[in-house]
Amino acid sequence: MSQITVAIIVAAGRGRRMGAEVPKAFLSVLGEPILLRAVRPFEACADVHRLVVVVPEELRARAEEMLGSLTKLEAVIAGGPERTHSVFRALQAIPRGVADILLIHDGVRPFVTPEEIARVIARAREKGAAILAVPLAETVKEVEGERIVSTLDRGRLYLAQTPQAFRATILREAYERAMREGIVATDDAALVERCGWPVVIVEGSVRNLKITWPEDLLVAEALLRARGER
Amino acid sequence: MSQITVAIIVAAGRGRRMGAEVPKAFLSVLGEPILLRAVRPFEACADVHRLVVVVPEELRARAEEMLGSLTKLEAVIAGGPERTHSVFRALQAIPRGVADILLIHDGVRPFVTPEEIARVIARAREKGAAILAVPLAETVKEVEGERIVSTLDRGRLYLAQTPQAFRATILREAYERAMREGIVATDDAALVERCGWPVVIVEGSVRNLKITWPEDLLVAEALLRARGER
Repeated sequence: MSQITVAIIVAAGRGRRMGAEVPKAFLSVLGEPILLRAVRPFEACADVHRLVVVVPEELRARAEEMLGSLTKLEAVIAGGPERTHSVFRALQAIPRGVADILLIHDGVRPFVTPEEIARVIARAREKGAAILAVPLAETVKEVEGERIVSTLDRGRLYLAQTPQAFRATILREAYERAMREGIVATDDAALVERCGWPVVIVEGSVRNLKITWPEDLLVAEALLRARGER
Repeated sequence: MSQITVAIIVAAGRGRRMGAEVPKAFLSVLGEPILLRAVRPFEACADVHRLVVVVPEELRARAEEMLGSLTKLEAVIAGGPERTHSVFRALQAIPRGVADILLIHDGVRPFVTPEEIARVIARAREKGAAILAVPLAETVKEVEGERIVSTLDRGRLYLAQTPQAFRATILREAYERAMREGIVATDDAALVERCGWPVVIVEGSVRNLKITWPEDLLVAEALLRARGER
């Protein structure tokens, strides 16, 4: 099997929570689109060889122009109705046997570092499946209606981030089963866990922000300014 | 019983996660201490009548000076080794029968609004116990060692915030029991839940940030600038 890693960057969401006209990955922070910022660390990471980017159909041409200078870019493809469908389309677009490791990353996480990407890849090679995650700093309540029914033990809880890396055979099997069974999930690791494959965490940083709410754009700007951008 | 609401603002933590010399509530954002910013919305909320602030013993004089201009300030008292002890000391400092509603707020949450405070108080008057909370936007994993053992169903999960408001009799009973049994908790609602009292959530905003990590100072600054501070 080849030792090729392909990163799939998913930016097919319409950003309903953001309340903007343009999907959030296409918004700019300090003059540069979030999606381009999210793809760059993969271009910079020596352990990643090819990039596949998934966007809404109507924004393919725009994304191709935006990402045109990236040497590892293999394809920009159209996503599906849910994130799970978008990733599945990317898997179909990558011929079997090309990659031994597949990475999946949110197009709205522009602060991941090449070093974090490399660590996740290394653990996935060893263990089969690995994701970035950070310990949960706040108290989580399980709620029914408006009433709290339990307080979770946060000592064992982590927030899942991306990238998430998998041996290609494992990820394909998990997705084929999910599509067959009509399952959609909030993250890719959940589909792999469902198949009984062990998934390990690699401790990341709270800096690896997912841009979800309008406030997050301000936060992203502040983080960029703090590292010297103007 | 009187209709007096006393707010306890807890800033007794040493801020180990922050890595600073000074506890995080005593750090300034845009020239003003976080603690003062966290207390001001309570001074401004007509439904709050008195304020008790809990700080590390060695910073009492400094806090008294910082908060001296607040007309509702009743006392600045010294905290204990854990947050639970700090709140218990505040409860001991407030004579029984003075307040019918007790509110507890983190001294490192400077973005709560008077309107949010009023909503939590109103629900606590109706239901006995109410806390601000926001739906969890990210995927949470339960981890053993480095391995993920489950993905939680985030549809029912909320992040607990403060303020948390309680009928005084309920909160005192919960704390007396916790101290007797040597329990410490990450939030006050958890102690009330342990006694079997129902606690309801009041939906808040992601803006009500808890300043935990060094990055959060940048975020706080960005949020303040966005609302016009310079």
